[in-house]
Amino acid sequence: MSVSPSLNPHVSVDCVIFGFSKETLRLLLIKRTVPNSLTELDDSYYALPGDLVRDNENLDEAAARVLKELTGLSGIFLQQFQAFGDPMRITKAKDRAWLQGVRQDPDARVITVAYMALIDSNKVQIEPGSFSKEAVWLPISEVPELGFDHNDISEGALMALREKVQIQPIAFELLPEKFTMSDLQTLYETILERDLDKRNFRRKMLNSGVITALPEKQHGVSNKPARYYVFNRNLVENGGLGFVNLKMEGSFTMFS
Amino acid sequence: MSVSPSLNPHVSVDCVIFGFSKETLRLLLIKRTVPNSLTELDDSYYALPGDLVRDNENLDEAAARVLKELTGLSGIFLQQFQAFGDPMRITKAKDRAWLQGVRQDPDARVITVAYMALIDSNKVQIEPGSFSKEAVWLPISEVPELGFDHNDISEGALMALREKVQIQPIAFELLPEKFTMSDLQTLYETILERDLDKRNFRRKMLNSGVITALPEKQHGVSNKPARYYVFNRNLVENGGLGFVNLKMEGSFTMFS
Repeated sequence: MSVSPSLNPHVSVDCVIFGFSKETLRLLLIKRTVPNSLTELDDSYYALPGDLVRDNENLDEAAARVLKELTGLSGIFLQQFQAFGDPMRITKAKDRAWLQGVRQDPDARVITVAYMALIDSNKVQIEPGSFSKEAVWLPISEVPELGFDHNDISEGALMALREKVQIQPIAFELLPEKFTMSDLQTLYETILERDLDKRNFRRKMLNSGVITALPEKQHGVSNKPARYYVFNRNLVENGGLGFVNLKMEGSFTMFS
Repeated sequence: MSVSPSLNPHVSVDCVIFGFSKETLRLLLIKRTVPNSLTELDDSYYALPGDLVRDNENLDEAAARVLKELTGLSGIFLQQFQAFGDPMRITKAKDRAWLQGVRQDPDARVITVAYMALIDSNKVQIEPGSFSKEAVWLPISEVPELGFDHNDISEGALMALREKVQIQPIAFELLPEKFTMSDLQTLYETILERDLDKRNFRRKMLNSGVITALPEKQHGVSNKPARYYVFNRNLVENGGLGFVNLKMEGSFTMFS
């Protein structure tokens, strides 16, 4: 016998979903329609996908449910990075109008636990569902004013991503299974917002054991075809490489 | 006019407070007495200091309040590291007995946001107060079974600390203002649970700009007196060193 789980009205999860395409880091945002529209022309806005936590699930499960419902994907990189609990999180008129349409107690204080997801955006089929009729990938430089404190949460996620890519081999989650060395360097440079030396990057990456070269090269390109590489997921996840440090150029090293 | 702030019964903060003395990493734990004691001999247990979040404060403020009330200290290193929200966080008989004595709704699901504090344990005067009549510094290897999921939270804090000391110069928060190179190396070795090469550690630390040698040396020691150093707090906090990486020996470096 299954009982419909009830929602905890005081705790939510929000997902900052990163993708990478056309050499640009992007966020997957949903469009929310305000039920009691304030004006005809101004009845929707963008927000992070999220939901209240159900009584029978833990925080990780709630975040995975949101992601699965929106993208159809499971088993992807999804990591809690920060809880946001300012008493003044809900101040904007649109947020209040939206809450009045969907919550029993629209004035209840909600603390949200924020998650970061990294996905290969080519794999995603957005599923119009209970969260939104529309979702869109926007470049991080073009993210508009979002609902609630979702701009703060998105910026927090970007800071956390920059820190994490330097200590964990996670950036690969944003690439397709096969990628060129140039794809990989462009991704790192985009996340870190700085240029990296090409020869040094290539040498370090190959020496690291994190990637393996394939015999296969690009097809149908006008310039010299580049070699494809794959991420050694099994080796990394089984700890075969030990601690992996992906440190920025120019930074100080204590124990090399 | 001041109004007594009410508590949010669904969200708490817990503080994992690290100290370092006698070459040992320690946790500051409080002793809780179960009001409706189950047995005469077994009426108390250890737990992390924590409290429900008040309606008028954000999460950081709640954690700082707990720390201040227990230790008298403010303005010390205090950083959120993870939220814990398993539906089954409260299962132990002692926890339930304690909750019945202090909470309006002892069965309410509480999600806790965990903070890590790093302090020079010599500075702390434990203030018996509303949290506990007794608090104690226990070596991390001797932490007993704690209330709720506080063992999981403590282990999560230790993992987070090991990661953070490799990317941020925060270990100094655990030392007195003046320390010897040997004190510093022992601290790093204790946190990382591995030996580090002495000459390499010394050279890296001095080259980093993170510490400055004082003219002063140890007094009244039987062996050769060692030089004292101080942490360059202002330089580090003002970003004068850029990104500081405190990486373990033997780990892989991507962008040096």
